[in-house]
Amino acid sequence: MQLSLVAVDKIPMVEPGDDLIDLILAGLESMEEDLRDGDVLVLAQKIVSKAENRYVNLADVEPSEAAMRLGEEVDKDPRKVQVILDESNEVVRKRPGVLIVEHRLGFVAANAGIDQSNIYQAGVEGDDLCLLLPVDPDASAQRLRQTIADRCGIDVAVIINDSIGRAWRMGTVGLAIGVAGMTSLEDYVGGHDIYGRELIVTQVAAADELAAGASLVMGQTTEKAPVVRVRGYAPKAPESADLQGVKPLLRPKAMDMFR
Amino acid sequence: MQLSLVAVDKIPMVEPGDDLIDLILAGLESMEEDLRDGDVLVLAQKIVSKAENRYVNLADVEPSEAAMRLGEEVDKDPRKVQVILDESNEVVRKRPGVLIVEHRLGFVAANAGIDQSNIYQAGVEGDDLCLLLPVDPDASAQRLRQTIADRCGIDVAVIINDSIGRAWRMGTVGLAIGVAGMTSLEDYVGGHDIYGRELIVTQVAAADELAAGASLVMGQTTEKAPVVRVRGYAPKAPESADLQGVKPLLRPKAMDMFR
Repeated sequence: MQLSLVAVDKIPMVEPGDDLIDLILAGLESMEEDLRDGDVLVLAQKIVSKAENRYVNLADVEPSEAAMRLGEEVDKDPRKVQVILDESNEVVRKRPGVLIVEHRLGFVAANAGIDQSNIYQAGVEGDDLCLLLPVDPDASAQRLRQTIADRCGIDVAVIINDSIGRAWRMGTVGLAIGVAGMTSLEDYVGGHDIYGRELIVTQVAAADELAAGASLVMGQTTEKAPVVRVRGYAPKAPESADLQGVKPLLRPKAMDMFR
Repeated sequence: MQLSLVAVDKIPMVEPGDDLIDLILAGLESMEEDLRDGDVLVLAQKIVSKAENRYVNLADVEPSEAAMRLGEEVDKDPRKVQVILDESNEVVRKRPGVLIVEHRLGFVAANAGIDQSNIYQAGVEGDDLCLLLPVDPDASAQRLRQTIADRCGIDVAVIINDSIGRAWRMGTVGLAIGVAGMTSLEDYVGGHDIYGRELIVTQVAAADELAAGASLVMGQTTEKAPVVRVRGYAPKAPESADLQGVKPLLRPKAMDMFR
């Protein structure tokens, strides 16, 4: 098996309302590259959020009493704390400088995945500008996938990834926050090893592994390569509606020993 | 940037004492592929452990009182519990069927990474055979890297990966458990984004992202592709001796809110 991960060239700075598929197809064309059935497109969360105009200007945010208290406790701007709380189901851990939450989308992340780097809007003070995650990244991924099917007649899978910190280990890795057109969690339950022994490790977070590899290709300090085309992976179609999207990757809180 | 991940063909079942570099070079040759300066070789932990004869026969293990009590508590074979404890610094979480530990190498993993699938030794009852992680995976990676330098005059980085479960998310991902010849954690502290704003997310677990992508190429149910050659990533040399190996990826317990 051979996997190739290619950064799509010439994606410009994305603005609210931009058609990401237009930008991606133009970028691929400029490289004399194409899309084929079975390719996986991995998009950085940031450009999806920008296209969907998920900006918040902290100057417009009125922090609640609770956000002010929590902001004082963890030494964060209470307006930013308010935005984090608005995007979260609950605070999982807190300490000065750190606020780790369960995002309303179900995954655990510092600051609810709210981003303040590589963003700019005219007239907004740099430190006041925040970018939230897409409203529904699975739906965003599905729309992008459908647009490609409609315009090009090509069946690709789409992953939206983000760089997220982890328990136990240092550094961020790319993780899938939105998935369409593939099984995000490959399940080998009932399978057997080469000696006929039942498999113990039975679930592989395939979309996260793709998201991680693509993250490396995107690089981290610039926005110059926010789209990666993965070729050579054979996406498996979800076997049922409830296995679609990123949800199979999210460990339910009741099953999580680390929350 | 373009990354290619190629599974090395024709790696046979590895036996204790096998020369892995011989097997890898022969496999690459059979594919008419080569190694070049800057390539990263990712090896599955399992073949390194096999070559290093890290087998344990549970029939030879005498469980302690503590292992017997813990085995009863979590419903596991007390002999296997003994082997897990011998490989661990401490138990991090336990519940029936699950024993999550800090491995003596410093990372957190279920069952101390001890493997019972895809292994076989003549005369050993299937359920009694266990395979431990390498004694010192960083040293193993460095030996493999040095062997390639000596025999071929080529400067590659080496990662030993394993499929490991996570807090908060379902499924395993490939993670680096041994690293040589590259910085495992890329540090952008002091760097700036395209608008000159100081970077907040400053450390990227590059070796884990490579390990994850390679894991996808290896597949999970067989041992047929336990080696992946990654080309197109530019490994960064560790800036100092204490930044070598996998250690920069391990969050010290005192800094970990999830232990």
